[in-house]
Amino acid sequence: MSDKRAIGVFDSGLGGLTVMKELRKALPGESIYYLGDTKHVPYGAKSRETVTRLSALNIECLLEMNVKLIVIACNTVSALSLTDLKKRFRVPLLGVVEPGAVGAVKATVSGRIGVIGTAGTVGSGAYEKAIKRSLRGARVFSKACPLFVPLVEEGWWGKKVTRDICKEYLSDLRKHRIDTLVLGCTHYPFLKPAIAGVLKGVSLIDSAFETAGAARSMLEEKGLLNNSGKKREYRFYVTDAPDKFKSLGSSFLKFNISKVNLLNID
Amino acid sequence: MSDKRAIGVFDSGLGGLTVMKELRKALPGESIYYLGDTKHVPYGAKSRETVTRLSALNIECLLEMNVKLIVIACNTVSALSLTDLKKRFRVPLLGVVEPGAVGAVKATVSGRIGVIGTAGTVGSGAYEKAIKRSLRGARVFSKACPLFVPLVEEGWWGKKVTRDICKEYLSDLRKHRIDTLVLGCTHYPFLKPAIAGVLKGVSLIDSAFETAGAARSMLEEKGLLNNSGKKREYRFYVTDAPDKFKSLGSSFLKFNISKVNLLNID
Repeated sequence: MSDKRAIGVFDSGLGGLTVMKELRKALPGESIYYLGDTKHVPYGAKSRETVTRLSALNIECLLEMNVKLIVIACNTVSALSLTDLKKRFRVPLLGVVEPGAVGAVKATVSGRIGVIGTAGTVGSGAYEKAIKRSLRGARVFSKACPLFVPLVEEGWWGKKVTRDICKEYLSDLRKHRIDTLVLGCTHYPFLKPAIAGVLKGVSLIDSAFETAGAARSMLEEKGLLNNSGKKREYRFYVTDAPDKFKSLGSSFLKFNISKVNLLNID
Repeated sequence: MSDKRAIGVFDSGLGGLTVMKELRKALPGESIYYLGDTKHVPYGAKSRETVTRLSALNIECLLEMNVKLIVIACNTVSALSLTDLKKRFRVPLLGVVEPGAVGAVKATVSGRIGVIGTAGTVGSGAYEKAIKRSLRGARVFSKACPLFVPLVEEGWWGKKVTRDICKEYLSDLRKHRIDTLVLGCTHYPFLKPAIAGVLKGVSLIDSAFETAGAARSMLEEKGLLNNSGKKREYRFYVTDAPDKFKSLGSSFLKFNISKVNLLNID
């Protein structure tokens, strides 16, 4: 059994490229088609209805490309809309929240787990619910960190102000003596050294990494792996400003994006 | 002569409320209808084509409400699309870039002027061009400050990290010995004290304030002022998440927003 169809990945913008990067490592034989809905980025401040509607359009678009699995690389979509989307589509859908939560539960000893993300993700309570489903007695402490995404996009991850902002956001979590922290936003892995500096000894759970492992297991279970040995292919689609995606994305992915296709999905 | 029709104001989100606030002060007798295109916020990273298309939809929407003047409270739209929009619509249109540039030219003594804004506004070169149209020998030094908007929305304007980030962004402008700085983004007036701390003795030009003055002159010239003495009315429209706009907007405007109407303008 071998399934040569690609894995589809979508995100509101380019943040999901960190998920694509982990997928590429975990599943080196698979083709991956990435769709960034750059016309509507960011999803974080939008209502659940709008996020679900836009996500459905992204999914329909990837289905037309005949993908076998869709990874929702966006924390906001995974948190707000995954349940609704699973009811509407038959293609296997994998979000980033569940794998991140499961990774945290595996890593924690004390059961005291922190979650950081955008205001939308934290406000939804989705990580907290998912963690408590896996570990009933868990204590979950959440904090929205809206400045982290622009800090990463500015490329300031090594600067002193970044460490100061980490201290500002994370001091409460330190007081709560968490032993594990979920990085509940695709941009946050870039800040790992700065975060680790403030929360010494705390296990940092990267949802992108956990999701790639979950995607691998899912394809194995369903017999959908591509064992054909045929050369895999990476494609990139956006809904606005392909040139900007190409340059920013290449530096984000540390991988040269040769071509970005513009789609109209309104 | 008295024209009771309202002034229309639009922005990609709630930042333009700082312009509305100044309009309210400069033109206390006028009704104002504010439209925030919160479904598509922010415009800063979008292509010119998309920004123009969305702006045209906003304008059509305000025209249906029978406004007499439309103030484009968004720096990105003013920088990228105003020329195109003026060709397409007969209603008087006023952007924030031209008034900000004229204000800076009036204030400068040395002719060395700084401009700060989002990456989109700075990248367009619109302020620089507008300043040089008014003052041929001007030297203009620009700097994009992408962290300022999330800092303001986080409410961190008095924090030490905010001063540090100001130092980081503004040190080059200090080296260039500017005597005037245009705050080329509707959010930036909140950071005036922090910016003034780094750039001592530099005149800070608030585009929102200058635009309100320009709107007043424009209505006077065209005989469109409302002298009827009839009670003026403020209305608020958004394209997504009205509740969020209501709570954030009230604190932004320091003025209670009683009702926010949801529009569909796709």
